[in-house]
Amino acid sequence: MNIKIEIPEWLQIDTEQIFTNEKEKMKLAIEFAKKSIDRGGGPFGAVIFLDNKAIAAGANLVVKEKLSILHAEIVAIMLAQKKFKTYDLSKIGLFELYSSSEPCAMCLGAILWSGIKSVVFGAKREDAMAVGFDEGPVFEQSWEYLQNKGIKVKGGVLRNQVKDILLLYKKTGGVIYSP
Amino acid sequence: MNIKIEIPEWLQIDTEQIFTNEKEKMKLAIEFAKKSIDRGGGPFGAVIFLDNKAIAAGANLVVKEKLSILHAEIVAIMLAQKKFKTYDLSKIGLFELYSSSEPCAMCLGAILWSGIKSVVFGAKREDAMAVGFDEGPVFEQSWEYLQNKGIKVKGGVLRNQVKDILLLYKKTGGVIYSP
Repeated sequence: MNIKIEIPEWLQIDTEQIFTNEKEKMKLAIEFAKKSIDRGGGPFGAVIFLDNKAIAAGANLVVKEKLSILHAEIVAIMLAQKKFKTYDLSKIGLFELYSSSEPCAMCLGAILWSGIKSVVFGAKREDAMAVGFDEGPVFEQSWEYLQNKGIKVKGGVLRNQVKDILLLYKKTGGVIYSP
Repeated sequence: MNIKIEIPEWLQIDTEQIFTNEKEKMKLAIEFAKKSIDRGGGPFGAVIFLDNKAIAAGANLVVKEKLSILHAEIVAIMLAQKKFKTYDLSKIGLFELYSSSEPCAMCLGAILWSGIKSVVFGAKREDAMAVGFDEGPVFEQSWEYLQNKGIKVKGGVLRNQVKDILLLYKKTGGVIYSP
């Protein structure tokens, strides 16, 4: 028996475009969050960059694939690792993960094991919780733990743009799928 | 593009056998940890039960599938959700997860989103760390968070048996794949 996860076509990315700053990179993650909502998915997007090029994009596929682990960050990490054929991206280069919202407890742990060495997020934990999503047990010490392992962490980039999207999702009756 | 995860045949389970107590259940999780080592995988096994029957088994497939998220618990959760066609197992019944070692930060979060309502583990965080595995940012409050969400948590069942397996893995030169 195998597990098959269908990655929708709209998660394909232009791998040639150069992104010169963090706002541009975050805009792309936000774009995938929007595309996800338009297709009935959760309001979250994530993109992994290497050498300022996008190499994998993820969106929340929990409802579509009926798998609770398929947060945007997890989808992006799996795609990046499949692409580079390694469970440890740090062996290949300095990968950066941009996520439209602060990673939840599960994704924070997944980042640690992925070999990604930089995480940037837009909306913060409390913004996602304000629309009804649970973020799990993430504490200040949790992010410090990652930083002590050499992972750069930055939150709040284009935060207000993401907050607007989260609020729109709530208004239009999007599924809140935390159990 | 799709993501395909090959589930090895040796993870198949007898779904008819009735397990009457927690030690029997843990023994099965330990059996899969041992099978995993014999096949060059990480020394971790997990089994999900419903109504005292095993419904899905997982082992650590990180190295084999080149995906860092594929801890034993994650594999078992994905198989259970695929089997019952839902991202929220709590809608089906009272599922129990037995894991040979204490779930890491990622798996702890994944349990919360899976709809599983009971977690039992054998070896503790410090036992896995003693042989070189990183467990990530898991604090006392992390487990309390799950308990506050109605999830039962119990550690240390057949702990010494699992510790012996972890030590054996280290002695025989097993891969420590935390980045």
